[in-house]
Amino acid sequence: MTASRDAVTTPAVPGASITVDDLPLRDNLRGKSAYGAPQLRVRVILNTNENPHPPSEQLIADVAESARAAAQELHRYPDRDAVALRTELAAYLTRATGVSLSVENVWAANGSNEILQQLLQAFGGPGRSALGFVPSYSMHPIISDGTDTRWLEAKRDADFGLDIDYAVTEIVATRPDVVFVTSPNNPTGASIPNAGLRAIVEAAPGIVIVDEAYGEFSEQPSAVELIDEYPAKVVVSRTMSKAFAFAGGRLGYLAASPAIVEALQLVRLPYHLSVLTQAAARAALRHSTETLAGVATIVAERKRVVAELAAAGFDVAESDANFVLFGRFTDAPASWRRYLDNGVLIRDVGIPGHLRVTIGLRAENDAFLDVSRQLAATDLGEKG
Amino acid sequence: MTASRDAVTTPAVPGASITVDDLPLRDNLRGKSAYGAPQLRVRVILNTNENPHPPSEQLIADVAESARAAAQELHRYPDRDAVALRTELAAYLTRATGVSLSVENVWAANGSNEILQQLLQAFGGPGRSALGFVPSYSMHPIISDGTDTRWLEAKRDADFGLDIDYAVTEIVATRPDVVFVTSPNNPTGASIPNAGLRAIVEAAPGIVIVDEAYGEFSEQPSAVELIDEYPAKVVVSRTMSKAFAFAGGRLGYLAASPAIVEALQLVRLPYHLSVLTQAAARAALRHSTETLAGVATIVAERKRVVAELAAAGFDVAESDANFVLFGRFTDAPASWRRYLDNGVLIRDVGIPGHLRVTIGLRAENDAFLDVSRQLAATDLGEKG
Repeated sequence: MTASRDAVTTPAVPGASITVDDLPLRDNLRGKSAYGAPQLRVRVILNTNENPHPPSEQLIADVAESARAAAQELHRYPDRDAVALRTELAAYLTRATGVSLSVENVWAANGSNEILQQLLQAFGGPGRSALGFVPSYSMHPIISDGTDTRWLEAKRDADFGLDIDYAVTEIVATRPDVVFVTSPNNPTGASIPNAGLRAIVEAAPGIVIVDEAYGEFSEQPSAVELIDEYPAKVVVSRTMSKAFAFAGGRLGYLAASPAIVEALQLVRLPYHLSVLTQAAARAALRHSTETLAGVATIVAERKRVVAELAAAGFDVAESDANFVLFGRFTDAPASWRRYLDNGVLIRDVGIPGHLRVTIGLRAENDAFLDVSRQLAATDLGEKG
Repeated sequence: MTASRDAVTTPAVPGASITVDDLPLRDNLRGKSAYGAPQLRVRVILNTNENPHPPSEQLIADVAESARAAAQELHRYPDRDAVALRTELAAYLTRATGVSLSVENVWAANGSNEILQQLLQAFGGPGRSALGFVPSYSMHPIISDGTDTRWLEAKRDADFGLDIDYAVTEIVATRPDVVFVTSPNNPTGASIPNAGLRAIVEAAPGIVIVDEAYGEFSEQPSAVELIDEYPAKVVVSRTMSKAFAFAGGRLGYLAASPAIVEALQLVRLPYHLSVLTQAAARAALRHSTETLAGVATIVAERKRVVAELAAAGFDVAESDANFVLFGRFTDAPASWRRYLDNGVLIRDVGIPGHLRVTIGLRAENDAFLDVSRQLAATDLGEKG
């Protein structure tokens, strides 16, 4: 049987004889699939609310030099408390919001997802619950699941706004340990003014996480204004992924009372932020003036996209963010596919009749609008 | 009252009116304090098992250039599955262990702490338990707490070895969902041969996490040899912090069956590894030959330190790692303080009568041994 001995065989992958179903996985994970938008490389990518502006040459050079300096000490553990970075984030938030924050008010992690996970580890978990107003950021229920926090949901209005009286009634009825309020809301776009947030915070028995991932795109005052008034309740989570065009750098942060920041140090994994993450985020903060100048461009483009979508006959949800939810598709998944076939990747967020588009560069938005006008003739249902 | 208006006042820190005790914290966190060795900057730092060899100029340059290249796309999310990095980690482990592993066998995260947390999120959690053999890595119970996994412990022998028959009996009696075996064990130092591990795996009803953070310092074969035989049970966790001198870069990884790797993708936070982490870790892997050459130097120094401590009259635990546990102090915390007063920071790991020293550069070890000889005359108790 020399032939078979000579045959080219791929070496077997160790352990490939079993599947996930053979594992003693937790029950709440069985049958689930991993979170994530398709990472496809097409001409126009407008599906994950990334900032379309690439980093400047100056920022790239600063990141490289910061990495070179940080790398001298790669054999040593990083500053576990990331004091320099948190101090600079506090200074940025102070400038951005007008509320004077200190290093003790700020905590940072590998993306705002890790911030939210740490919050649920400290204030949620088994026997506790978290309430969200859906549709909203789909990671909120997933991170609740991942920390065994019971997920509760209340519905937004038909136009995706949030009726505050209804929200308060739901909070009083369900008494959640954690309330998520996303403002501006992803994937629908509108903000909630601080007056409404105040009513929600007053009603909440536990903490209220105001997820301001898209805060810089909104003209509403930040909820950090409420921290001093409700130090045991208000947490404002933020990210450098969007306005700072730093999605690849993974830096989320929060502002809250010093006590809440101290509580998170009980659940954070030690040395969670690498020397490179700390150094690169500080470099990005040094270039905040140039980077944030791009926010106005994106907001102007958003207004143009909203106007042109409406003119083409689409329903368009109000947006304070760097994306727009629009519809009235008779078959949103089929229309999503048609955008893709035309080289434009947008997002089907699972809201019937609707799709979400990230605001890109002008030429990218034009490409998206061209396909949209084409589909408006064929893919839209009757006005409700 | 013009004077008081002119007085320089520190602006109040928002929310500073409350303390952690005023927060609706989870019960199992109340009264706890944050994990972590003191980060003191003294002359000789031998307390956190860091690799004493700084990165080479070539590695530093490669990290900087890799960061520059990665920074071009900082505005985009990273590869969620870190395929290139995992492929290269699999190639390294294949070379290091002789077991042919593929990208499907490897998962990576921000330090092995995050690897362990993800494993407990998938296979531990509420209503489940994890068993460790103590004294061992102190993060195992902390991460169990953080994921609400019930922590069980069995004791190592008086000389810190692990009696396999006893371990099997404990596993059969307690039926833990997760078993932690640290090999080489931190903070005591000895490895467990694969024959012993096999007996433990056979007895375990759930998964067995073999924590090989210090694997490169040991001459024992890696437990990756057991993956194909026990694909639903054996997980080998590793880190680049120690042998790769990459503690600041935060890169932990594991080898297991493809099914276990797939399961972790249900609990990992999306985009958990930044473009910079992925790029820098790949740079470090490209320089593995030069970096790992330092492992032999550390092992030789460890043997010298063990011999000299023994000659000075100390009890010294067997070690396969880059640290040594030694005693017989009448008052270990007081002796720890005396080392510090002499400019040498080592670790009090809470084992009565013992302290742990990380193997440093030759001159650092000499400084440590000088203080040790001095203390041997005054600080040691009677031979047991």
